[in-house]
Amino acid sequence: MRMVDLIMKKRDGFELADEEIKFWIDGYVKGEIPDYQSSAMNMAIFFEGMNKREIATLTDYMEHSGDVVDLSDIEGIKVDKHSTGGVGDKTSLVLGPMVAACGAKLAKMSGRGLGHTGGTLDKLESIPNLSISKSIKQMIAQVNDIGIAIVGQTAALVPADKKLYALRDVTGTVESIPLIAASVMSKKLASGTDAILLDVTVGEGAFMKNMNQARELAKTMVGIGSSLHRNTIAVLSDMSEPLGFAVGNNLEVKEAIASLRGQGPEDLMELCYTSGSIMLVQAKICETLEEAREKLHQVIENGAAFKKFCQMVEAQGGDVEYIKHPEKFEMARNIVEVRSKESGYIKEINALDIGISSMKLGGGRETLEDKIDMSAGIVLACKVGSKVKKGDLLCTVYTNKPLNEYASILDEIYGAYKYSRSKVEALPVIREVIREA
Amino acid sequence: MRMVDLIMKKRDGFELADEEIKFWIDGYVKGEIPDYQSSAMNMAIFFEGMNKREIATLTDYMEHSGDVVDLSDIEGIKVDKHSTGGVGDKTSLVLGPMVAACGAKLAKMSGRGLGHTGGTLDKLESIPNLSISKSIKQMIAQVNDIGIAIVGQTAALVPADKKLYALRDVTGTVESIPLIAASVMSKKLASGTDAILLDVTVGEGAFMKNMNQARELAKTMVGIGSSLHRNTIAVLSDMSEPLGFAVGNNLEVKEAIASLRGQGPEDLMELCYTSGSIMLVQAKICETLEEAREKLHQVIENGAAFKKFCQMVEAQGGDVEYIKHPEKFEMARNIVEVRSKESGYIKEINALDIGISSMKLGGGRETLEDKIDMSAGIVLACKVGSKVKKGDLLCTVYTNKPLNEYASILDEIYGAYKYSRSKVEALPVIREVIREA
Repeated sequence: MRMVDLIMKKRDGFELADEEIKFWIDGYVKGEIPDYQSSAMNMAIFFEGMNKREIATLTDYMEHSGDVVDLSDIEGIKVDKHSTGGVGDKTSLVLGPMVAACGAKLAKMSGRGLGHTGGTLDKLESIPNLSISKSIKQMIAQVNDIGIAIVGQTAALVPADKKLYALRDVTGTVESIPLIAASVMSKKLASGTDAILLDVTVGEGAFMKNMNQARELAKTMVGIGSSLHRNTIAVLSDMSEPLGFAVGNNLEVKEAIASLRGQGPEDLMELCYTSGSIMLVQAKICETLEEAREKLHQVIENGAAFKKFCQMVEAQGGDVEYIKHPEKFEMARNIVEVRSKESGYIKEINALDIGISSMKLGGGRETLEDKIDMSAGIVLACKVGSKVKKGDLLCTVYTNKPLNEYASILDEIYGAYKYSRSKVEALPVIREVIREA
Repeated sequence: MRMVDLIMKKRDGFELADEEIKFWIDGYVKGEIPDYQSSAMNMAIFFEGMNKREIATLTDYMEHSGDVVDLSDIEGIKVDKHSTGGVGDKTSLVLGPMVAACGAKLAKMSGRGLGHTGGTLDKLESIPNLSISKSIKQMIAQVNDIGIAIVGQTAALVPADKKLYALRDVTGTVESIPLIAASVMSKKLASGTDAILLDVTVGEGAFMKNMNQARELAKTMVGIGSSLHRNTIAVLSDMSEPLGFAVGNNLEVKEAIASLRGQGPEDLMELCYTSGSIMLVQAKICETLEEAREKLHQVIENGAAFKKFCQMVEAQGGDVEYIKHPEKFEMARNIVEVRSKESGYIKEINALDIGISSMKLGGGRETLEDKIDMSAGIVLACKVGSKVKKGDLLCTVYTNKPLNEYASILDEIYGAYKYSRSKVEALPVIREVIREA
């Protein structure tokens, strides 16, 4: 078998056989197939796509390109959730403790932020002393003990994805639905979970800019799950404006804490209730979504979810005093109010613009090597649908950068807002639920 | 400027600006842009194409990626021809001396054979002691002296094409019309000629399998020529069956010698007369194609073209005794007659099958490192349109391989032939002439 023949086969619109996909992935991980052939293959897949069988096979070989986590030492149905990323997306920090407080077992491996999107690991690390480095054994012990762990992926998991993703990032092949789906699902499957709840974000601040793309990606991933015998359901959620109010690492942790204490933003909580209900049914803890939603409301109201978060922070070495007294979190030196220059209804708060602005303020990474300022970011004062008068607060900016660096960022933040004279409805956060490929 | 942005721009169907093409080609030649980004770009171009301006710009930057030959020390209009390759294509060995005998100046840089297609340099090297390695200065002196030189391309010419072509060969992006056109034309332009006659082959034995593709490639190359101010005309010629009768290096040289002595196969001679007439008009040696064709007939009949070939062989150090007495050429140990198993009219002699069989007999290279057996190949006894009876000679096979190796090749040669009960017309060799993009 020659890699060049496989590239030409895909290029000309033919299906790759299972053993051909294996030849590629195995050879690439071993270094026998060079980057320049894999990048040509990725681009051919970008244009010609893959059918269900090819995508499931690709996912399967990627999953098994390295270690696979065995969670069988944890009793019950293990559930996991994954978001395709967004701006202000602190869902895992709220939803995780909520479902764990209801009895679900969540052994979650998360990622870091890049570009305009944040990462759960970075957010967690804004809690002093908290460690996201755990061995699989330690993670299992923690989940058996308190029901939840959120840790970093070990290096031995899905090496094929690490190598392919880094290549796609520099060769213009990130935006391919089969490749995104195989990348996400191979990681989730390798982490050993039984059931998966996917949060596929859609809108300006997400990878998927419109509903058609998002629906296709969701169906593709649900299809992989069912091919590989894992219960997989996808929620399509809005990411045209940021989720909740806070964008930036410790700012988002503070919002997550408030949410677990019952003072969460409406959109974030709705996403947590919808996703959490599905997860509790997937975990066979509840029989119906209604029953599950009721249970989730209870653990917010009775403080069990907040307590679960404190337990997790403690188990991972974090300073729980910060969770109990969020005012202890480090504050940025410069806190700047951004006030409206117009009157009207807010029609748009461009999530991509806000995400990039937050990154530039110090809250994110442009390249993987950049260091994050945990206290930097933006806290919105209102959302799409709000009525504002000239001079009303739009958002507050937190940064340690000097004025000459952040001044132009303020202009970019203003550029993220669009107004309407007539009334605008708030955006629904849940767009669709996909249960079948 | 970032290469990944340029890849995505092309991938999404947008035009690349001139400075963006320059950034790619310059960076790639300097090694600042890695193979894996160039291969993704090539694949994006394969799918999205390039417009006339982009192709002309790409050709221009490739041409100037290394040295450019200055032929101004040669008086008159310099003409060159280039074939897109085929099986049994010894045209340059016949056409070159013909037009030079008429007074044209031909400083030709040729290539080597690969796969099923032969290369002029290999064929020339089957003449004992002949050297294709000449400095530019030596080549110019030879053309000033006798009007013709056929040499190898120096390493310093179009390094961008050398690097890109080697990459395309292993990444499934050879078959892209903009990339083929830029590759061919950058080499021709860098070799310093004023006018270019392109022989675009079409059919099973060629890169371009059908007339639409061949026409598109021809128009693209003629367009580049006119954008970059070189008189460029393309002849589309048939390559569904081999050209002439002989396939294989010294076998083709012997056929070229016979052709220059007035005993050339009809299709080969027609191609030489048509192409040669255009070249003589391009060189302003003749005013009309009719006048030029008449002049070409004369140099065959009066022996001037044959004499010109002898002069060239001598000037390049070759043993002219072989040209004068072609029976001196080394003969293969095994000479096997392939006789028809059927009666009827020959409808097809698949050039690709014959080319691959000849290569396997030792007459060609599978990879660039393979050594060629100069005496190996196939000599056809009849062409498409011939009437044969069972037992008639189809072709003669020349090889130094042992029977156990060449026996299966004989089967493949049989497979190249298709018959018809009803009369079949001989294939016209000239399909079309393209003068405008």
